[in-house]
Amino acid sequence: MIKLGIMGYGNLGRGVEAAVKHNLDMQLCAVFTRRDPQSVTPLTEGVKVYKAEEAAAHAGEIDVLILCGGSATDLPVQTPEYIKYFNVVDSFDTHANIPAHFDCVDKAGKESGKLGLISCGWDPGMFSLARVFGEAVLPGASTYTFWGKGVSQGHSDAIRRVEGVADARQYTVPVPEALEAVRSGKNPQLSTREKHTRECYVVAKEGADKAEIERQIKQMPNYFADYDTTVHFISAEELKRDHSGIPHGGFVFRSGKTGMNNEYNNVVEYSLKLDSNPAFTSSVLVAYARAVYRLSKEGRSGCVTVLDVPPAYICAQSGEELRRSML
Amino acid sequence: MIKLGIMGYGNLGRGVEAAVKHNLDMQLCAVFTRRDPQSVTPLTEGVKVYKAEEAAAHAGEIDVLILCGGSATDLPVQTPEYIKYFNVVDSFDTHANIPAHFDCVDKAGKESGKLGLISCGWDPGMFSLARVFGEAVLPGASTYTFWGKGVSQGHSDAIRRVEGVADARQYTVPVPEALEAVRSGKNPQLSTREKHTRECYVVAKEGADKAEIERQIKQMPNYFADYDTTVHFISAEELKRDHSGIPHGGFVFRSGKTGMNNEYNNVVEYSLKLDSNPAFTSSVLVAYARAVYRLSKEGRSGCVTVLDVPPAYICAQSGEELRRSML
Repeated sequence: MIKLGIMGYGNLGRGVEAAVKHNLDMQLCAVFTRRDPQSVTPLTEGVKVYKAEEAAAHAGEIDVLILCGGSATDLPVQTPEYIKYFNVVDSFDTHANIPAHFDCVDKAGKESGKLGLISCGWDPGMFSLARVFGEAVLPGASTYTFWGKGVSQGHSDAIRRVEGVADARQYTVPVPEALEAVRSGKNPQLSTREKHTRECYVVAKEGADKAEIERQIKQMPNYFADYDTTVHFISAEELKRDHSGIPHGGFVFRSGKTGMNNEYNNVVEYSLKLDSNPAFTSSVLVAYARAVYRLSKEGRSGCVTVLDVPPAYICAQSGEELRRSML
Repeated sequence: MIKLGIMGYGNLGRGVEAAVKHNLDMQLCAVFTRRDPQSVTPLTEGVKVYKAEEAAAHAGEIDVLILCGGSATDLPVQTPEYIKYFNVVDSFDTHANIPAHFDCVDKAGKESGKLGLISCGWDPGMFSLARVFGEAVLPGASTYTFWGKGVSQGHSDAIRRVEGVADARQYTVPVPEALEAVRSGKNPQLSTREKHTRECYVVAKEGADKAEIERQIKQMPNYFADYDTTVHFISAEELKRDHSGIPHGGFVFRSGKTGMNNEYNNVVEYSLKLDSNPAFTSSVLVAYARAVYRLSKEGRSGCVTVLDVPPAYICAQSGEELRRSML
């Protein structure tokens, strides 16, 4: 059995706990939390809860520690810190900062002899794999990534910071015509606005100026200004009833030519449709924890990503079983 | 530059030649053929053509030899033979015999110190990867593979062996309702007949009994008896005009649950739409030749498959570039 620990028991941490249940060669041994351990009750029997700052004392009990904090402030500190004591997996997803995070985790891991796998999940993660496979098998072709329909936590948070907003949920939606153009092999040039629309469900505070809220949202730079944005005002009850899930998904396309004179067209499509973003993300984290365990046993240390892991390493089955049943 | 050789200059060999043109870090150095070398003229300038039996004498000039023969009789002999002298890649696709072929190539490669990657292409190959990723990230879920719409060479050949048939082309077609049921997450149980139909375009010899030909085709065990099969009789001109391409493609789905109580549904879809089956297959072979070259440089020998190769190894870009631009 591979012994796992969870650092941080939020949506992602609870997702990891659920994913472990689906993997018979794995066992959840400990949850580490910044909250009072007495206030945290895992759903899995026999799992110990410890204070985050006591983690190092339990290093010997855990094969891989899955870091379930956020990318903004938690992981840049936690991953290089905990790799001093544990093999680790994180879901660091601030794309622009991945190279720096990699170098930092790589250095700390090489010093401690532990292995860290960063930026795991579905984007970065499974979508990165789709992009790299597409790049390799159709060099010179075009890659398109679409997200949604799904809830963007970052955009929902941005709306909540607008004056007069009590609560909000934002869906990122791929434009159907753009999807269809790419799928048909047309290789269109698409602007930001042509690829996705943004749908906002907003609960206004009593007496708030709804027209002004809508204006503020639609003009927000980076988040909404470059998109066709729709704002729906709904009640708190409606938000809870109709928008409490965290679905997500998306599409990665690779579209381009083969043949001596580029005479053949090819379209590769990879897509995900997920009822729960954190539940699927953590399912990917757990699969890659298996690879980290195996690579670490072989003496690997430092930092790797999904791009460095032989696919067979993330499956419970042996190489022989995989060749027989899945090749 | 990675120096490649091609063994066998048919559809697949010519596809490899075209794929090399799309990969700037690779160079086609030699074509080996069982035909008279004088009768073979590669489209790429400067490529030498040699007799297949002289291949061993050119071992020092080639980093990876891509074996472009058939799975029925060529590759079971050629791959274990040529790995004595070369790193090799093959597209062995007789699924049931892959484990035995693997063992045989592994033994020969370990003896010679060379590396062979077998069963490369899209199925086995990219579809195998999709199945393994699906298995790992959604354990306990269901996998569905659909092929087509595309030309099955094996089924076309089977029709050509029917008495009275001058020529034929067979398309494998996924049943749209089955695709849609899987895509929507319904996890249906599907019989062979419910998954695919078979469309046959047949040129009858003059005076042949068409009703009897149709009966013979539809009753053919393994090939057609378990499917809803349609037979269209057309002229040789129509066959040439409308059915001379070799398109193919297909879909791999993984569909199943996440969550502590299996409360969340997930559907992962990977699909290919290819104007030319051999052109795309050989494009995959060439990408994996790059991985074989790199793994061999690291001292790997014996046999591997796509499941054993870190995805970054098949891309021309460095790990650093991939992390920056694709993760």
